[in-house]
Formats: sequence, structure tokens, C-alpha cells
Amino acid sequence: MFPKLSDIHAAIPRLAGTAHRTPVLTNSTLDALAGATLFFKCENFQKGGAYKFRGALNAVRQLTDEQARHGVVTHSSGNHATCLALAARQRGIPAYIVVPSTSPAIKQRAILAYGGRLTLCEPNLATRQAEADRIQRTTGAVFIHPYDDPTVIAGQATVAVEMLEQTPGLDALVAPVSGGGLLSGLCLVANALAPNTEVWGVEPALADDACRSLREGRLLTNSNTATIADGLRASLSERTFTIIQRHARGIITVTEEQIVAAMRLVWERMKLVVEPSGVVPLAAVLAAPEKFRSKRVGIILTGGNVDLDKLPWQ
Amino acid sequence: MFPKLSDIHAAIPRLAGTAHRTPVLTNSTLDALAGATLFFKCENFQKGGAYKFRGALNAVRQLTDEQARHGVVTHSSGNHATCLALAARQRGIPAYIVVPSTSPAIKQRAILAYGGRLTLCEPNLATRQAEADRIQRTTGAVFIHPYDDPTVIAGQATVAVEMLEQTPGLDALVAPVSGGGLLSGLCLVANALAPNTEVWGVEPALADDACRSLREGRLLTNSNTATIADGLRASLSERTFTIIQRHARGIITVTEEQIVAAMRLVWERMKLVVEPSGVVPLAAVLAAPEKFRSKRVGIILTGGNVDLDKLPWQ
Repeated sequence: MFPKLSDIHAAIPRLAGTAHRTPVLTNSTLDALAGATLFFKCENFQKGGAYKFRGALNAVRQLTDEQARHGVVTHSSGNHATCLALAARQRGIPAYIVVPSTSPAIKQRAILAYGGRLTLCEPNLATRQAEADRIQRTTGAVFIHPYDDPTVIAGQATVAVEMLEQTPGLDALVAPVSGGGLLSGLCLVANALAPNTEVWGVEPALADDACRSLREGRLLTNSNTATIADGLRASLSERTFTIIQRHARGIITVTEEQIVAAMRLVWERMKLVVEPSGVVPLAAVLAAPEKFRSKRVGIILTGGNVDLDKLPWQ
Repeated sequence: MFPKLSDIHAAIPRLAGTAHRTPVLTNSTLDALAGATLFFKCENFQKGGAYKFRGALNAVRQLTDEQARHGVVTHSSGNHATCLALAARQRGIPAYIVVPSTSPAIKQRAILAYGGRLTLCEPNLATRQAEADRIQRTTGAVFIHPYDDPTVIAGQATVAVEMLEQTPGLDALVAPVSGGGLLSGLCLVANALAPNTEVWGVEPALADDACRSLREGRLLTNSNTATIADGLRASLSERTFTIIQRHARGIITVTEEQIVAAMRLVWERMKLVVEPSGVVPLAAVLAAPEKFRSKRVGIILTGGNVDLDKLPWQ
């Protein structure tokens, strides 16, 4: 089941007043470097520090009281977990979070600070899912998938609705792709509301399942995900793959060096704390300038949850 | 000579379209910590990365063509230098910058990147002034003092005019104080336009000349300035001291530990890159909560020029 435009429009009032309508910033130095006019949607300022709060809040708020009363459960490499804990606290229900033991300390602390109930597990998808299944059985909590869920996708899609209102006439929208919840949401919105706006996904070359999947026309997964962009290690689902295959203009991959350089540019020039996963769109625009030259390009700075004790240029 | 309100109003169109009207951000976590409602004026997003661009641009633009044609010269520990170079480049005139050899590498690089002509000197005021005097004599450039100049003060004061428009009804405005250009500008604006808004200055305990000067009723200087807040090592001038003595509610000092903790909070919670000098107002609001409890407090985040290779918590 794919979210419809009406599902996305229904998410907007569910988020209003709780999620931030984040600002769009510009920067003339980065425009000059890119040879394009860049508009940065600052989801690093979102509640919980990431756009993931939109999907989590939409998923939590559309539950009936009967569904919601035993809480929610998920597994996540980070921001979905933090944001689901925050969204659940907003509704006054428990959030059970299964987190790989390798996730950054800052994200584990944030989950606990937002009242999430944390279970650490081995860093592989099978163990995470098994642990989440066990919690779901024993507590009756509702499982909220990080991306393979129409209500989550509809929530993430609201970032595109906002951005198209804030900066009309975009030639392109560029966003990271991991599990594809955000990118498929952007695809649905642009296709319906701004068909002249190309949607591009960007992923690390070290976790390039989306690029390979589109090229081969079938869903492939990542075997190795040793990228610094710790939010981009998941693989597409059948649902997100189908939407992206249908509507995205393409997928660009970037190297680890390009990610770190883009991150440093954003910190030094824009004075914004953005996590490695959040800067891959800028890295792509700088790495593939011919695709964007002289265009009006919307970039989603997806999140700002960085462990300040472990910065990549040190 | 003190700037008049008309001088401040005259600065506004000089800056418009070149300096940014910076946004005001809020943060519920920091509000809860402070027990107050905080409004953060993001001058770290200003051109050149600091509010100093306002004063520099106002000073450069009010010169006649005859005055301007040999350029401008200054000595500065950092942001005034960068911003004067940028303002001079806007007008197409040279900027000669005398910089202490101990200033951060990022600031020296920024001056050069903005086309400034750099002279390094020993890190004491006498040498800096002598070198600037020499350049002034040999080139005919106009000396633009970092803070003891009515046109510079009038430029900095525009930050208060904007903030009062963006967030009416502030109980307090809190800003760093070093040479006093910004703080005296805020005093003049609040006194004229918002007399119910208290103006507080904040400085490191390790460079507390303003606090001691106000207490003793006469102008004192800093002998030791070993603070991490490298933008706050200057001392008041007679001019800025007189304005501050007349209109400021008081000066609060903060420790080095409080500065670093506030900086980390702003980076982690607000996702903003702000330099140590820029976070001292927040440090003061957290260190002296009884002064601000339940009030609407405007905080000037003055700049974001940090050497990302040398962060204070490492």
C-alpha cells in the first residue's frame, strides 16, 4: 500500500504545532562553489534533531486510543528511534526501542532522555527484527517501521510540501536515501504537486543499494555498510523501491571523502551542525555539478545528531 | 561623540540587501533549563560569520569617495578584521588588517579569502596600534576602529532594532561585552525604543574589565585575558564605557567552564555552530537564573567563526 496525496495532506494538521516548520537557508559561498542556487531545508532544527520526527509523530498520532495504549516499538539505527520516543512521549505512551549496540552514544542518550525504553542488540537486521517482534508479542505495542510504513512515509513527505511552499519553482529536490522513507515521500509530493521538479536520491558509495537496485531493476540490499553516514546504512523495501523507481530522476553516490568535505563546508560556512548523513545531497551537488548547473536546487539537511566528541575530520 | 538614534536609523538602509536580516530561533530544551523564554538572534549566520559585519559595512559605506579611495585599515583580534575586509571588498577598496599572531588560523584564512591585506604583529595593543598607524601614514587608508567609533557602534546597534521588531516585548537583551561596541549600541536602541527592556552585558571572568569598571565607576583595562572566548579580550573605551555606565542594567561574568558548557549545549541542542565568545549570554542566563526567571530574554549569538580543528571539549 502506497500513501496517497490525501494521506500526506492528512499528516499536515497532525504535525502542526508540534513538529517545527523548519526554515530554509541560503548561502552565497556554497552557491558559488556549486554553480547553482541552493536552498537548504533545515531539518536539523526539527524536534528530535531530524526529519524522522515527522514520520514518527504522524504514525503515533494516527493510532486509535485502543491501538496506542500499549505503546509503540521499533528498531532503528538512530534518528527514527529518538524521534519515535519523543512522539510517544507527546502522546503519553511508552516507546520500546531496539538499537544496535554500535549506534552513536549521543543517539542512545537522546532516546533515554526522551523517555524511550532501550534494548541494545547485535548490529544486524535479523537480530533487531527478532528482538522487536519479541517486545511486540510480550507488551502488545504497535510496531512502527523506520520507513516501510505508509503513515511514516506520509509524515516524511510533509517536508516536501513545506519546502515547495517556501521555495516555489525548484528545478530539483535532493535528499539522502537509505530505507527510502523520505525519498519516496518526496517523489509522491513532487509528482503530484510539482511535476517539473526532479527528485534525486543520494547515498554513500559504501551503501549503494538504491543505485544498484534502480540500475538492475530489482531490489538489492547492502552487504557492507561501513560508511561514516550512520543514518544511511539501511536498504530500500519493496514499497519504497517501487515508488522511487517510478518517480525519482536518479540516484547519485558519493565517497566518504566527499561526505566529510561537504560536512565541513556546512559547519564552517553555514554555521550549521549537520550529521554526515545529512550532507550527502550537498556532496552530490558538488560532485556532479553538471546535473544541477544554474538550477534552483532544494537540499534537505536531514538531521543534526552528531557525537561532538567524534568528529570525522579529527 | 556618541551615535544618535538618527545615526542608527541611517545605518539600516546602508546595510539593507547586503547584511542579512538574521533569523531569531527558539529552543524548548534550553527554555526549560533556563526557566525563561529565550530568543536567539543568529548573528553567526551574518555575512562574515559575525555581527561585526554590520559595523564594518556601515563605517565603509558612510565614507565619501574621496575618503574611501585609499582603503581602510584596522587592527583586530578577529571578526572585525574579517568583516572589514568583506565590507571593503563590497565597495572595491583595499582593507589593511593588522592581526595579532596568536589569532585563530580560521580567522586569518578568512581575512585573506575576503581579499584583506594581512600584517601579523605581536599580540599586544601597543604594537597593533603602532603598526596600524604606520600603514595609515604610508597608504592614506582610513582607520576603522573595532569598536571605539560612532559609525561602527551605529552599525552594531541595528541588530537590536531588528530584534525588537522580530520579538516585541522582551524583558531583557543579553549580549557579550568586550570593547563595548555591540553592548553600547544595544543600550542606545533599548533606551530609545524599548525602555522596559533591560540590557545586560556578559564577559569572561578572565577578562572582566567592564564589570570592574562599572563597579569602580572608572575605566579599567584587562591585564590578563587568557580566556577561551578569543573575541572578548579587548577593554572598553571611554566612549563605550560612558554609554554602558549610563544605560546597561549590569554586567555578568562567567567562568571558562560555563562558557564551554553553554557552547556545547548550543551545538548539541540548537544545531548551531557558535564561537565561545558568542555563547557567553546563554552561559550567564544559566549561571544567574534568578535574574531572568520567567522572563522573555533576547540573546545575541554574536558569531560562528570557530576553528573546527580545535574545539574546547576535546
